[in-house]
Amino acid sequence: MNLDDKLAVLAQQIEARLRSFLALFDFGLSAELGRMLAYHMGWDGDEGGRGKRLRPALTLLCAGACGGDHEVAMPAALGIEFLHNFTLIHDDIEDRSDLRHGRPTLWTRWGLPQAVNAGDALFCIAQLALLGLGETCGEAVAARAARELNQMCLRLTQGQYLDIAFEDDDGIDLETYLAMIQGKTAALISFCAAMGGLSAGADEATLTQLMDYGESLGLAFQIQDDYLGIWGDPAVTGKSAASDLLARKKSLPVLFGLQECVEFKALWGVEALTPVIVDEMAVMLEDCGAKDYVKVKAELYTRRAFEGLDGLFPNKNEDAEVLAALTEKLLHREV
Amino acid sequence: MNLDDKLAVLAQQIEARLRSFLALFDFGLSAELGRMLAYHMGWDGDEGGRGKRLRPALTLLCAGACGGDHEVAMPAALGIEFLHNFTLIHDDIEDRSDLRHGRPTLWTRWGLPQAVNAGDALFCIAQLALLGLGETCGEAVAARAARELNQMCLRLTQGQYLDIAFEDDDGIDLETYLAMIQGKTAALISFCAAMGGLSAGADEATLTQLMDYGESLGLAFQIQDDYLGIWGDPAVTGKSAASDLLARKKSLPVLFGLQECVEFKALWGVEALTPVIVDEMAVMLEDCGAKDYVKVKAELYTRRAFEGLDGLFPNKNEDAEVLAALTEKLLHREV
Repeated sequence: MNLDDKLAVLAQQIEARLRSFLALFDFGLSAELGRMLAYHMGWDGDEGGRGKRLRPALTLLCAGACGGDHEVAMPAALGIEFLHNFTLIHDDIEDRSDLRHGRPTLWTRWGLPQAVNAGDALFCIAQLALLGLGETCGEAVAARAARELNQMCLRLTQGQYLDIAFEDDDGIDLETYLAMIQGKTAALISFCAAMGGLSAGADEATLTQLMDYGESLGLAFQIQDDYLGIWGDPAVTGKSAASDLLARKKSLPVLFGLQECVEFKALWGVEALTPVIVDEMAVMLEDCGAKDYVKVKAELYTRRAFEGLDGLFPNKNEDAEVLAALTEKLLHREV
Repeated sequence: MNLDDKLAVLAQQIEARLRSFLALFDFGLSAELGRMLAYHMGWDGDEGGRGKRLRPALTLLCAGACGGDHEVAMPAALGIEFLHNFTLIHDDIEDRSDLRHGRPTLWTRWGLPQAVNAGDALFCIAQLALLGLGETCGEAVAARAARELNQMCLRLTQGQYLDIAFEDDDGIDLETYLAMIQGKTAALISFCAAMGGLSAGADEATLTQLMDYGESLGLAFQIQDDYLGIWGDPAVTGKSAASDLLARKKSLPVLFGLQECVEFKALWGVEALTPVIVDEMAVMLEDCGAKDYVKVKAELYTRRAFEGLDGLFPNKNEDAEVLAALTEKLLHREV
């Protein structure tokens, strides 16, 4: 089996377990709340309406790479995917996003009050799923995992605080931006890796290495995403050229340009950005050094992620091989 | 010391511990998020802007009444108060409430996106506080408490789902309403009592009795609140007569009237309710049996709460005496 097939098998296993976990809850008179959650998880239509479940797959692979068992790590994997989805429900509200995976978001379909509440319900379900580690690893591991989940999640809210605050602020410095994506993206990926190790009984030094690997992976992925949002090949990304500029997304290259390039800043203030102006802006960013800056940053964290993997698993078992291939795919991708 | 003095001392101890717990977190670049939480907890003005911290006091008293120690139960008490406050932040958004304890709500002051996110942050902090039981009672108790917290909280979201859904529905039957307040009010009070017992090492039978007592207390309190919202003495409640009718609150007597009294239902549809119409409506409700119905229900749960207490603590120590006096005050009150 190639990597994609292996990931598809993992994702399918995870999907079945996510569904059976949610089915454990009796929503009684509030059955519609249960239907909201199933809709958000993408279980009322075709598979196109779902995420790729890469985060829980990362947890299972890290567990396996450490010599542990997927079944033992499963409660953590389920908790992580539910948690990720809880954050998406609230993010969509906070960002006023109408669509997610091509379908109307929860708040546009059921209204804002019910969507805020459904997000809270999914947060509880995520915690309950993770606490299932009590059965597979004992109560001490479950309590520790719950503690780390909530500490990580608090970092997510700190990143999200900055992200919302940035909407009205064009003068964000680059270090602040990195702190934001550390909270918003990297903290959860880092947690995925650590939970795999924890459930496999890894020692503290290994857990730290796993967290560092996950953090580097998360940062590299996000920065590369920022890069591709402007300089990605439309034929590969499936988006229009420089789509992040058209969407006025304050990504890393944009923040660099706002600080370093007066002409770019002037165009950024123009009310209606056309594809022609946007192409011009992409060239300006390249000329002022934004493209190189972002590339260097992405390469830095990419290198750290691979060094982390090599340090963790000098002799790779099958899951470690898949983990390496997945890291490769995520970071050397052309999309 | 009389009851009020004893409760004031407890509330003061809890307040100091809540503040020092929140101070443990370094919000770094998102310091404003920390300030939002401190504002919501009522720590930037006088004490009038705060709740009475009765829920955590209930936990400490139940722990003490079971022969346990306040300090051992403190992590649960702190977790419960933070959790209660998290629910208030999101409830205020969902209900579009502008004021809480006479001050602007979080979402009116910082905007909706930041307030949703701040609620999530406080939810994490609540879980972390509760997980502090690991240090005072061991990790198995901490994991169990976390599991019960999230199960209870899921019931809160189910109650809240119904509450939001009821806004556009005049045909709610009375059993559905009771299920709603069971989730929205009684589940948390029941949890407060159980956590006190759990931290004191109470056996399973006692925990069940504590939960039943808390549930009865919560239901009795809420139904009495519904009663007083229409027939309470304005001189004592500090609100105008029949204030719940003026506010068009779908309380238990109103739902009874909508089902049993055609004249009441007709007036409920009138666009501008005046104090004169509202007085008339209160009389109609009394005539159709709503007042008696609500009184009987309130008395039923009040009796159950007191029977529960007597069954739990036939020989009362000092905390059990205070708990009985507090129950008395909450349920035989004239406000």
